[in-house]
Parts: sequence; structure tokens; C-alpha cells
Amino acid sequence: MSATDDPPADPGTNERATDATQSHGSFPEAPELVTSQWFNTDADISLRSLRGSVVVIEAFQMLCPGCVSHGLPLAKRVHAAFAHDVTVLGLHTVFEHHEAMTPVSLEAFLAEYAITFPVGVDTAGTGTPLPETMQRYGLSGTPSMLVIDRAGRLRANAFGQLEDLRLGALLARLIDEPAAPH
Amino acid sequence: MSATDDPPADPGTNERATDATQSHGSFPEAPELVTSQWFNTDADISLRSLRGSVVVIEAFQMLCPGCVSHGLPLAKRVHAAFAHDVTVLGLHTVFEHHEAMTPVSLEAFLAEYAITFPVGVDTAGTGTPLPETMQRYGLSGTPSMLVIDRAGRLRANAFGQLEDLRLGALLARLIDEPAAPH
Amino acid sequence: MSATDDPPADPGTNERATDATQSHGSFPEAPELVTSQWFNTDADISLRSLRGSVVVIEAFQMLCPGCVSHGLPLAKRVHAAFAHDVTVLGLHTVFEHHEAMTPVSLEAFLAEYAITFPVGVDTAGTGTPLPETMQRYGLSGTPSMLVIDRAGRLRANAFGQLEDLRLGALLARLIDEPAAPH
Amino acid sequence: MSATDDPPADPGTNERATDATQSHGSFPEAPELVTSQWFNTDADISLRSLRGSVVVIEAFQMLCPGCVSHGLPLAKRVHAAFAHDVTVLGLHTVFEHHEAMTPVSLEAFLAEYAITFPVGVDTAGTGTPLPETMQRYGLSGTPSMLVIDRAGRLRANAFGQLEDLRLGALLARLIDEPAAPH
Repeated sequence: MSATDDPPADPGTNERATDATQSHGSFPEAPELVTSQWFNTDADISLRSLRGSVVVIEAFQMLCPGCVSHGLPLAKRVHAAFAHDVTVLGLHTVFEHHEAMTPVSLEAFLAEYAITFPVGVDTAGTGTPLPETMQRYGLSGTPSMLVIDRAGRLRANAFGQLEDLRLGALLARLIDEPAAPH
Repeated sequence: MSATDDPPADPGTNERATDATQSHGSFPEAPELVTSQWFNTDADISLRSLRGSVVVIEAFQMLCPGCVSHGLPLAKRVHAAFAHDVTVLGLHTVFEHHEAMTPVSLEAFLAEYAITFPVGVDTAGTGTPLPETMQRYGLSGTPSMLVIDRAGRLRANAFGQLEDLRLGALLARLIDEPAAPH
Repeated sequence: MSATDDPPADPGTNERATDATQSHGSFPEAPELVTSQWFNTDADISLRSLRGSVVVIEAFQMLCPGCVSHGLPLAKRVHAAFAHDVTVLGLHTVFEHHEAMTPVSLEAFLAEYAITFPVGVDTAGTGTPLPETMQRYGLSGTPSMLVIDRAGRLRANAFGQLEDLRLGALLARLIDEPAAPH
Repeated sequence: MSATDDPPADPGTNERATDATQSHGSFPEAPELVTSQWFNTDADISLRSLRGSVVVIEAFQMLCPGCVSHGLPLAKRVHAAFAHDVTVLGLHTVFEHHEAMTPVSLEAFLAEYAITFPVGVDTAGTGTPLPETMQRYGLSGTPSMLVIDRAGRLRANAFGQLEDLRLGALLARLIDEPAAPH
């Protein structure tokens, strides 16, 4: 497994993200987050507590160049454009260089890069370099974006660089959906 | 009146574009296009003939730097991302340097910049440098983007640089609206 | 012959440009410009009249996307950084879409893109789409940059995108050379 | 004291860098580096050992956004363009968030960002957050670029974003100077 320093524009993934809203089929429930610490929030955050909201989670590593240049700026744009309608979270899914990306380093990173939305630290895995939440979602690497609807279902799990126009369309549709499952 | 060589990020306008979909109030009917010539299409195009479709019109001048660097690339991204759901048109609204931006120059421009969607030439005005359609829509300059819903109503008239996330959201909502007026 | 809409990063050419200064060998005299008209200058300009100066000539076509996005911005940066030491000229070498890139269109282009250094119009060729100066220099397409030393010799003839660091080094060396031939 | 997250284009500083080569006046000897550790090199590096070479030092902090987006990419371009003629070094001058930018984090950063030239760790200061070499050079913040001539003299000390054309010119002139002092 390798980091996504140079994340591919992944049309397959993007297509999947868009298709999710076209066919209102059945979607899996988004697994709960497993975190060891949170920044930029007073209380820990769970997906259960966000039920009823559209949630965007940016899974990143602070030393992943593609996250710094593309993934996190996209998350910030979503945070700015959909401030009232979407809950944006970061998830620090460290799966390499663990000793280099500790919470104390992450805290300075968030300050220097002016990231103001809540960021959780994915709990370290046991017997594997992959952290717990990363395993639950089967993430391919970083950056990855997870989109969860009001009913708590996973509507997109996109590795690499998402296109703003398509993401804006997906979010508008999820915002407009009722909270109760179909 | 000046060209928009360096178009301002116009939050007011963008906000208006987004607001349009929030409040399903009453929207004016989009005035019909007044064109003297078309490129990239066999037959002339009217808004009347597109009733039932979501339409995005990029109003530009071929020698407007902001159109070349921002407006037209955005229109191309919309064309690529919403190929099946949105009709993208260009409108060459020449309001200055008229003798420099004739149809023969425009044709070469469209070829060199690989613009493949239909482009109409806004009919020259009488007793004013402003062409006819530009007057009808009260455009402030170029680039401007017009967004028209399935019922033929004008839902956004945005001067300057639009944000992809917000535009994607607006288009998704218009695509999902029924063609008949509310 | 094809236009350079998407000019390749041409390492060979760039290398050649740099090498020119390493080996102070013999360089050919730069052919005189053949122009039909000038903009941004009161009097016509010849290379002969610029003998003693370092001269940079940006050969471009106003409807060549690579010229607009890379070649002309580079020429503007040279003009700003070496205002006192280098004479920057544009040369409109139209070899395609001739009817679309007439002097009247060029004049509006120069105004809209805020190009303030002198720009000559390469004289149309006879029995060939290639203009006269373009033929004399054997240009491969546009954008191309020509660099001429104080002695009137051609020191670089680079097609495509030049690197600023290498160009800065070349110009410094030519500026520091005495005007008299070696 | 503040970090240079958003480094100003500092014309004064750039001008100074260029002026350094115009007037071949007297320049101060560059203070020796004080380092606690090196990466990307087998042996520690001193300026004394590099006497006779043109040296470019990029002073950065791994969590400084301006260093990541501008300073280090410029150093990489210098390394690529002047591989045979200029020695490029990095200097990790941590003056804030010390616990977040330890050598173990720096090592991962260098790997992820593919920085291959030698990088020294500026020795922590005593009774001040400023590290030793940073104090000796009176750096205003990061990124800063230091340029040292073959005689070991400091020819530029530029805070913020340098312009490639001017830097290329400066380096060419220093490369062409004899090693012995004037």
C-alpha cells in the first residue's frame, strides 16, 4: 500500500460518487468513526450524533502532499460554500510514518494551515499500520473523501481528487433529501 | 462601461445565484436570444426550442482575458460534467473592439481553444455598442453566466467568476426540478 | 506544420539556449526582421538599430493558447525584470487563420492583454502561409523566443516553454558581455 | 515574531539580491552553519568545506505553508537547473512549534516531498526560540533564501518569494565569478 502523494484523477470513483445520487438504491450505513482525540471541537464527535445532517469527511495525512495541495483545500471550500447545510470533518488517518505524524505535530499543522473544522485522529490499528476507521471504510489511501447522508448512509467514498462541480451537485441532492430513509 | 479583464469574485452575484434555488419564488422568463450567426451547430438555436432543458449560457468576448482564463474553462467543465443533463451554449457578446472580434476571428478562436459547444453571435445593437441580447439581459460585462431552468426562467445571471461547488449545487437542483412551472 | 497550442516543454531547445553561453563559440548573425507594421512604438524597429543591446523577441500568434498562457507572460516578466538591460519585442508571426488575426484584431488584443512593449507584424509570405521573418529564423511554431546578443548574433531560438531560471542566467551573461564581437 | 505562512513578495529584498551583483562592492563573509543533524548526505556539511562553490541555502520549516508551496519548489528548480554549478542545501530553521517539527518528522517530510538535496537541522537556540544559524543570519522568517559566492561571501539574504528570472541572473553571475575574492 502506498501513499497518494500524487493522487490520480479517479474518474471511476468520481463516477461512482455521482451515480450514488442518480439511483436512489440502497446504501450501506456509514461505519462509526473510531478516534483517539479531536481538535477544533470541545466534545468528541460521532456520526451517530450527526444523524440528520449531511456530513463530509476528509481523510488525510498531514505529510501527504496531495492532501495538502488538493484534498484539504477542497474540504475548506466545501466548508465555506455549504457552511449551514453540511458538516465538514477532518480525519487524520495515519497509515505510514506514524512517529512523524503525532497529535502534537498535527495540532501545529492545523494551526499553520488554518484548518478550523473539527479534526479527529483515527485510532491506531492493532497488528497493522492501518488505523481503525481507515480499515472500516476500506480506504485506498489519502486523500479520500467520505460523504454521508442525513440517514447516516455512505453515499461516496472517493480516493484522489474530486471535481468541485460534481461534488457540489451531490451535496445539493443530499441536502435536499429528507432525513428519514427512503 | 469597461470590459471585465480582471473579473471580480462577485459574492453578491454568486449569493444571488444560490439563493435562486433556495426560495422557489417567481422567476422572470429568460428573454429570447437575438443572434446573427451560430458556430458548432447545424441549425440556429433558440431558448424556445430548448424549453424543458436546463441551459447554461456563457456570455463572452474572445479578447476578454477573464473570459479566456476563467469563464470559458468553467463552461467547458460544466459541459463535461453535465453532458447529459445541461445544454451549454456560448454567446459572443461583443460590446467593444467590434472590428477586432468579427465572426471570422471568432471561428478561429473557437478552433484554437477547442470549444465544441454551440456558440451564437449576439446581434449588434443599433445606436449603442451593446449587442441585443446583452441589452435584454442587462449584462454588466464579460464573462457572465446565465442559467435557465426547464421552464425557461432565468435562475442566475452572474457577472465574473462563479464558484464550481455552488454552480454544481444550483445545476443539480435545476436538473431535478420538473419542467412544468411550480 | 502545426500550431503550438500545447507547446511541449522542449528540454533539447532549452539546453541549447543555455549551452549557447557556455561555449563562446561562433554564433550566426540574427537575420533582420521583416515587418509590415508596428504597435506600441512611434518608429519602426530594426535589429540593426538595436545593435549594442541584448534583445528578446517573443514570436507569437494572438489566437495561440500557449502564447497567451505562457509565452507572452514570460516576455512580460522579462520586460519587468530586465527593464534597463534588455529590449523586449513582440513579433506577430501569423502562419494560420490569417484572416482571423489581422492588425486591427492584434491592436485590440494588445490593449486587452496590457502588452506595452513594441510588437511588429511579421510580413506575410509569398506562396506560403509562413510569414517572412518566421521563414528566416526557421521557427517551428509559436510561441518561440529569440535571444540576440549585443553584437547582433542569435544566441537562442527556443520553441515552446522556456524556464525562467535558465533564461535569467542566459540574459545575465549576455548583458555582461561586451558589445564588440569576440 | 510571526511565521511567513503567506510570504510577501518583497521587492526590496529581491532588489537587494540583484543589486548585490551589480555593484561588486564588499560583501560580508557568510557565517558558518550551526547544525545538529543532516539528512540526504553521508557527512555533515560546512560552508568552509564548500568554499569555491556557489551555494544556495533554503531556510524553511516543514509546517510553513509558504515554504511548502513556494520556497522549497524554487530550491528544487534551482537544484535541477544548476545541478553542476550550484550546491543547493536546505536548512530546517525551526523557530515555532518546536515539538511539532522534530528530526523524525522532518525525515518523513523530506521523503514525502521528494527533497533530495542535503538538509541540515539548525541547532536549537539557548534562551530563545530562534535556532543558532537563524540568529547568525538575522533571518526575518521562513522561507528565506541565502546565496553565497565562491569566496564564501553572503550575496543575498531574501525573505519571502524570489523571482526565478532575477535569481537565475544572480546565480549565473556568481557562477562566472572567479573563486578568489576581488
